[in-house]
Amino acid sequence: MSVMEIGKELVVLCQQGKNLEAIEKWYHPDVVSVEACAMPEMEQIQRGIEAIKKKNKWWFENYEVRSGELRGPFPHGDRFALWFKTDVTCKQTKQRMTLEQVALYTVENDKITKEEFFYSMEG
Amino acid sequence: MSVMEIGKELVVLCQQGKNLEAIEKWYHPDVVSVEACAMPEMEQIQRGIEAIKKKNKWWFENYEVRSGELRGPFPHGDRFALWFKTDVTCKQTKQRMTLEQVALYTVENDKITKEEFFYSMEG
Repeated sequence: MSVMEIGKELVVLCQQGKNLEAIEKWYHPDVVSVEACAMPEMEQIQRGIEAIKKKNKWWFENYEVRSGELRGPFPHGDRFALWFKTDVTCKQTKQRMTLEQVALYTVENDKITKEEFFYSMEG
Repeated sequence: MSVMEIGKELVVLCQQGKNLEAIEKWYHPDVVSVEACAMPEMEQIQRGIEAIKKKNKWWFENYEVRSGELRGPFPHGDRFALWFKTDVTCKQTKQRMTLEQVALYTVENDKITKEEFFYSMEG
């Protein structure tokens, strides 16, 4: 599989809301997930596929996605990038937010070994 | 300067067409520029600020930018990313193209030491 093909498959599954299936299929057991900063209930770095599945479940339990836009994948060597913008509502506070970011994925032997999220909290 | 501030300054200068001024101001003398692939008249890796200024001059001599869209900067540690889409015309062939990519910049001691461009030539 090329990095581009893996990127495309990841995008298709995530756009169908099948994030956990995407992680199961394409993430390496020792994958590392790095946010741009720590969040109140989430450490900046998560290690291992189980931690990342838990992070995804936490996200979907707490936020409702109202709409989204996505561009990519954009490949470069063993990495690919996505740009996306998501309008979400925090289920608990009913606060609406627009999240816009670049995600950078590293692929080794047909598995994603790292995901890094680029964004600013400046609003 | 924060990585975010340097990113914002780079964006402002480039949107004003002042790419060479941006390079002069924010790029490290030993900066490395890496394309997603080699191009007919341009090697994949360019090293040093003079090579990168030359690459930029070559670009503007050969392509006319008709319009563009840009999002970012999106920071993460000592790096920031931009997403952009540019409609250009090749001056020689008159061929029109839309280029869409993510650019990833690494900052050390307030200077950009690496720029990496993520895109696909698949069309």
